[in-house]
Amino acid sequence: MLPKDVQIVSVDDHVVEHPNVWQDRLPAKYKEAGPKNIRDDQGRDVWHFEGQLHFNGGLNAVAGKPREEFGMDPVSYDDMLPGCFEPQARVKDMDADGIHAQLCFPTLPGFAGSTFLAADDKDLAAACVSAWNDWMVDEWCAYAPGRQIPLALVPFWDIDKTVAEVERVAAKGSKAISFTEAPHNLGLPSLHTDHWDPLFAAAQDANLPLCMHFGSGGSPPIAPGGPFTAAIALFGLNSIMATVELVNSRIFERFPNLKVALSEGGIGWMPYILERTDYTWERHRFYTGMADAKRPSEIFRDHIYGCFISDEAGLKNIDLIGVDNIMFEGDYPHSDSNWPNARKLLEVSLADVPDDQARKIAESNARSLFNFPRA
Amino acid sequence: MLPKDVQIVSVDDHVVEHPNVWQDRLPAKYKEAGPKNIRDDQGRDVWHFEGQLHFNGGLNAVAGKPREEFGMDPVSYDDMLPGCFEPQARVKDMDADGIHAQLCFPTLPGFAGSTFLAADDKDLAAACVSAWNDWMVDEWCAYAPGRQIPLALVPFWDIDKTVAEVERVAAKGSKAISFTEAPHNLGLPSLHTDHWDPLFAAAQDANLPLCMHFGSGGSPPIAPGGPFTAAIALFGLNSIMATVELVNSRIFERFPNLKVALSEGGIGWMPYILERTDYTWERHRFYTGMADAKRPSEIFRDHIYGCFISDEAGLKNIDLIGVDNIMFEGDYPHSDSNWPNARKLLEVSLADVPDDQARKIAESNARSLFNFPRA
Repeated sequence: MLPKDVQIVSVDDHVVEHPNVWQDRLPAKYKEAGPKNIRDDQGRDVWHFEGQLHFNGGLNAVAGKPREEFGMDPVSYDDMLPGCFEPQARVKDMDADGIHAQLCFPTLPGFAGSTFLAADDKDLAAACVSAWNDWMVDEWCAYAPGRQIPLALVPFWDIDKTVAEVERVAAKGSKAISFTEAPHNLGLPSLHTDHWDPLFAAAQDANLPLCMHFGSGGSPPIAPGGPFTAAIALFGLNSIMATVELVNSRIFERFPNLKVALSEGGIGWMPYILERTDYTWERHRFYTGMADAKRPSEIFRDHIYGCFISDEAGLKNIDLIGVDNIMFEGDYPHSDSNWPNARKLLEVSLADVPDDQARKIAESNARSLFNFPRA
Repeated sequence: MLPKDVQIVSVDDHVVEHPNVWQDRLPAKYKEAGPKNIRDDQGRDVWHFEGQLHFNGGLNAVAGKPREEFGMDPVSYDDMLPGCFEPQARVKDMDADGIHAQLCFPTLPGFAGSTFLAADDKDLAAACVSAWNDWMVDEWCAYAPGRQIPLALVPFWDIDKTVAEVERVAAKGSKAISFTEAPHNLGLPSLHTDHWDPLFAAAQDANLPLCMHFGSGGSPPIAPGGPFTAAIALFGLNSIMATVELVNSRIFERFPNLKVALSEGGIGWMPYILERTDYTWERHRFYTGMADAKRPSEIFRDHIYGCFISDEAGLKNIDLIGVDNIMFEGDYPHSDSNWPNARKLLEVSLADVPDDQARKIAESNARSLFNFPRA
């Protein structure tokens, strides 16, 4: 059962950037090409960035809407709860939801900054990354200390700038780094190279876990012509794939204190994949050069964390996953969210879970991982 | 507990075709270009087909080898247990393994015939499909009636020929059709078109389930440079993807008696994916045109079957999957196989499972699905 005094910490929510996030912060020379938000003649609030248009898709801001009104059409700020983009309103919505603290991912930049990876002017793009990080700490999180865990992006197309940004945001108070679950899908070196070692070293030194949000490495492979219900159901496969690659890598031998949070990926698949990765490792480790590697499930339990919104399959099998590796997420204001009923439904989900485990899952695992103690 | 009188029926094993499967059966005009097996000067037995070389990969015939000798190098017939390719020896190996009956997938053709899909001469390719189907019934299965469940391939690049072959093999005694889990990955129309309806209708009319073997629609997406342990662990994702597409399709509305067996995909992921597909359907069915579709988990329980070799995560959660949808597989002579300990290990796996459930899982579900009653 979830003890009354538990302060729920949600490790995956989302913020829709207000229209001036970048215009308030970019150097003068970048303001024209940098992201600015303009209402068009159809009443839509549209991001303009390097001459390209970006819309806030409807599913990114559905909190408070009935399911019959969900959709993928672009929405304006007027169509959303103010909590999507205003820190004051967000804290009120968290209070209504029973969420004490949360960690928010970006919208326009993509979960790990892929919008800026695709930019033509990479100096502008790096300035946009830093501007988002500054806004996250100085404005979004500063409004209510102890209620928001600041996540930072990195200019991951440039490993030296990435390391410098990790060091800069660590000094500024950021608590986590968003990094793509599948860099190879974005045209960058895979997790099985040493290309990312400087990032891993910097994150480890700064005690900043990497958050790999599902979809940060592209969409899962889907069959053409199917309904979007199928695509949405398949996004968790990205987290499964990231897990399998990570526990079959040598990354954590080189960086024994590095931690990875799988954001929005669910937990119900973990018993299967831990068993399966061990089974295949036991059989295939000799000819694959993995004979001396640590057992995949041990790597997972020492380094990888998952989270869930509603996940009976996972919560029935906490012992097969590891209670220290499970966290909760609210996903406000996206379509998986149960706002304003997050705490009520989590109490139901955890009704049969021992109190000490419920406390870890709902609060203390997240506080430990993100170095975010109670105020 | 597994009752002593249960005859274990394994729904996924493999046969390595003997050198003359096609030369014994192809019309004279096709013998030269058709598959023939020639020992090369390195002692390897190599398939020649349309001028291309095909090897029997080492992992396809490891039964009886210690794990330290597993590998991906080509192997000759001398390197394998005779049970890989001789029906008499296979039955002896099944007896040693405690397996009463089994269903075997092909090797040279690919699990669903993709080698023939890639052929230049599609008439030759169709003749190769029919030759394999004839050999399966007339030679492989005929040796010991009641011990082998005949699977059939189809020339799936041609829907009319596919229907004709389904009708032909049904009359001949075949009990299942091998069909790719992801036709779109092979350059063919996806499951979300009506292209395959004539096949589905013919299979339904003939009471032949479709077997979708993982890998029959290509490999899962993997990160470059990783060890093959990761790729092997990820193959189950193909079965997850096929499931999500199927339960988000309208196929079973059009073919209410059609059944699909997911071959070699495991079952431990099913509780998660059934919960997840229902969750996303509940939220997203309105704007996706799925509001009037049946609930995904209901579609699954009415139409889709999985199987496992060793799967604690699945067997701990039989109630979340559905006991009628679970079958056993031995995977002889592939690398997941536990030969000659299949029955012993299944007894351990099912030790805490009620007898009536163990009987269904180990025998009667497979006999019902494949219309293969006790002799």
